[in-house]
Amino acid sequence: MFKPKGFEKPTGVRDYLPYAVKKLRQIERNVLECMDRWGYQQIMTPTMEYYDTVGVASSTSDQKLFKLLNNRGTTMVLRSDMTAPIARVASSLLKEQPLPIRLSYHANVFRSIEEEAGREAEFFQTGVELLGDDSAEADAEVVALAIESLKAAGVSSFKIAMGHVGFLHGLLEEVVPDRADAQELLKDGLLRRDYVGFRNTISELDLSETERNVLSGLVRLRGGKDTCDQALQLSGHPQARASIDHLCKVWEVLEAYGVSEHVLIDLTMIGDFSYYTGMTFEGYASELGFPVCNGGRYDNLLQQFGRPIPATGFALKTNRILDGVNVIQEEEIQPILIQYDAARRQEGLQEAIRLRNEGYTVITEWVQSNSPSANTPKVTEYREVKTYLANH
Amino acid sequence: MFKPKGFEKPTGVRDYLPYAVKKLRQIERNVLECMDRWGYQQIMTPTMEYYDTVGVASSTSDQKLFKLLNNRGTTMVLRSDMTAPIARVASSLLKEQPLPIRLSYHANVFRSIEEEAGREAEFFQTGVELLGDDSAEADAEVVALAIESLKAAGVSSFKIAMGHVGFLHGLLEEVVPDRADAQELLKDGLLRRDYVGFRNTISELDLSETERNVLSGLVRLRGGKDTCDQALQLSGHPQARASIDHLCKVWEVLEAYGVSEHVLIDLTMIGDFSYYTGMTFEGYASELGFPVCNGGRYDNLLQQFGRPIPATGFALKTNRILDGVNVIQEEEIQPILIQYDAARRQEGLQEAIRLRNEGYTVITEWVQSNSPSANTPKVTEYREVKTYLANH
Repeated sequence: MFKPKGFEKPTGVRDYLPYAVKKLRQIERNVLECMDRWGYQQIMTPTMEYYDTVGVASSTSDQKLFKLLNNRGTTMVLRSDMTAPIARVASSLLKEQPLPIRLSYHANVFRSIEEEAGREAEFFQTGVELLGDDSAEADAEVVALAIESLKAAGVSSFKIAMGHVGFLHGLLEEVVPDRADAQELLKDGLLRRDYVGFRNTISELDLSETERNVLSGLVRLRGGKDTCDQALQLSGHPQARASIDHLCKVWEVLEAYGVSEHVLIDLTMIGDFSYYTGMTFEGYASELGFPVCNGGRYDNLLQQFGRPIPATGFALKTNRILDGVNVIQEEEIQPILIQYDAARRQEGLQEAIRLRNEGYTVITEWVQSNSPSANTPKVTEYREVKTYLANH
Repeated sequence: MFKPKGFEKPTGVRDYLPYAVKKLRQIERNVLECMDRWGYQQIMTPTMEYYDTVGVASSTSDQKLFKLLNNRGTTMVLRSDMTAPIARVASSLLKEQPLPIRLSYHANVFRSIEEEAGREAEFFQTGVELLGDDSAEADAEVVALAIESLKAAGVSSFKIAMGHVGFLHGLLEEVVPDRADAQELLKDGLLRRDYVGFRNTISELDLSETERNVLSGLVRLRGGKDTCDQALQLSGHPQARASIDHLCKVWEVLEAYGVSEHVLIDLTMIGDFSYYTGMTFEGYASELGFPVCNGGRYDNLLQQFGRPIPATGFALKTNRILDGVNVIQEEEIQPILIQYDAARRQEGLQEAIRLRNEGYTVITEWVQSNSPSANTPKVTEYREVKTYLANH
């Protein structure tokens, strides 16, 4: 049996020392303020939820959920995202609130299995949900807000890759209809971005030359707005065409926001197929090798909570941004040190109060001996040292 | 087996809707800023800790700990306070940092059993730890900071009751030496503030008239600084006298801070005897019927993590303050609504960006039909409604 030592923290979770907390708090505040200006109001939900409701409804696979039993023997989960808890709140406390509902959050979430792979078992997400609006305008709003949020978080250079689960679904229904196994194999290759495996699967399937070309063409559907035109030439399936029409509309709105320079179309992006129902997107920072946000439309989630309304949203991967981005720090103001002894205590402490009221950080130090030199601080650490000692 | 419905959240935990979040965030920010000005730097630690180390070291009784198993079969706890995790960090990541160390936190903590009694199983604490200073000056600093923190949190009228576990310990050793059972009974009465039970216990014990009078006199030891003088008359035990001397010194420093009007001495206060080693205190808000903060000295905790240094600190009961106090709200600024249609989309969205950059909250609404009247908002909810519609 593993016996931890006193100084050990569990694997997969982390301590944030003051410098990291300052940076994290600054990202949190800047992003939440940005979301607030877009009309998204912040909510908070419990760390623990029922497994049977929020746990099952979350997009997290069952094996990644942190489970525990409460006193009554009911299985609970540590929340793995904020989307399912917000769906629960929208269907209960907020069920009378007129649509659309705009909500934001900054929360820690938990994923059990990740610690095995050296990844984090607890991390922060900062995001929004826009509930009750199924329009392309709503999808564009959350993409545009994701772009503003990344800027507010200090990510200077990034791209948003935007796709649509309906396009891939339509294309596969057109080329390999009623063949769930083949569809799964192809999706799996795309999900892992394993284009060699994807091409191998294509060559192994019993397909015509044209069908092979259609599937092979899919991996080239990444780029600017003209990608939509290429996609329309590749598939005539109604669902595929409707999906492309929708993406074109979203793009148009993003142009009106003036942010389309940050966006590219990527129709090979698959995301979580069982969860998303429409447009999906991922954000990549140029300087970092991994996604910094993801989001999309999930119109089927809220009906699981008894309020069947459409929904779209995104979450920033706040920890990855924290680790990878140099947030512009407010100028670090060093504390003032006030040294005092028993004789001049009141003077010293009252001066500390006065300076704190003016906004300064003040540390007070009681000098016990009559030799203040024994207590001489490293002056460089302080903005100023003031002494209130009897023999000075 | 209990089967939750989709809209249900677990008992004992809560959702915070936007108004409550604003209030909670305001308390959090004001208090943390206050602590920062006193030189306390914020840290964050994981929600989960090892049971064998932090769980066992916490002041929370075993049955109140939320336990779960990680993937490796090691027992984990959801943190029940921040004091034990901070002791772990001070003994590991911060072990080279010179003393004293001043740390602050705002964190959610978990108590399993409380949900049974309709109390909260997850709630917030905002507090500080001052590590590596065993002086009365240090104890006074955290009491004075608790007072400033309560003011910053918006608690307008309150008292801090201050005691010392050493006085009661000395008194009991003097009157009922070597009688652990009698000591436990007496302590239990005080802990539950059951003074009738306490007097009954006294009358049932085999004691002299003088001894009875000493114990009965204990419950009168509540009041101003003169309570210390009364206490010295009651007990001649060295530990009791040393404890009172210490409290007198703390009081003197609090006078120098100019905050002693908020403080009273309560030598019947017992707190968690196994945890605290010296001065202890509790804060009571006049308008509320329950403690709003507690703290004290715990000089034995850090040695459990391999760094035997003295420590003192406190935590605000942030949720109770949230529920009971009317925080002064910043003036609520209603959002501006911008309605636009496809024809004037760019104008409308660009105006939204411009206003957001000026700090306004702006909600945009896409008007689908040509009859904007169908979409007429309840104007009273908005600061202003601006329309960008083709036929206007």
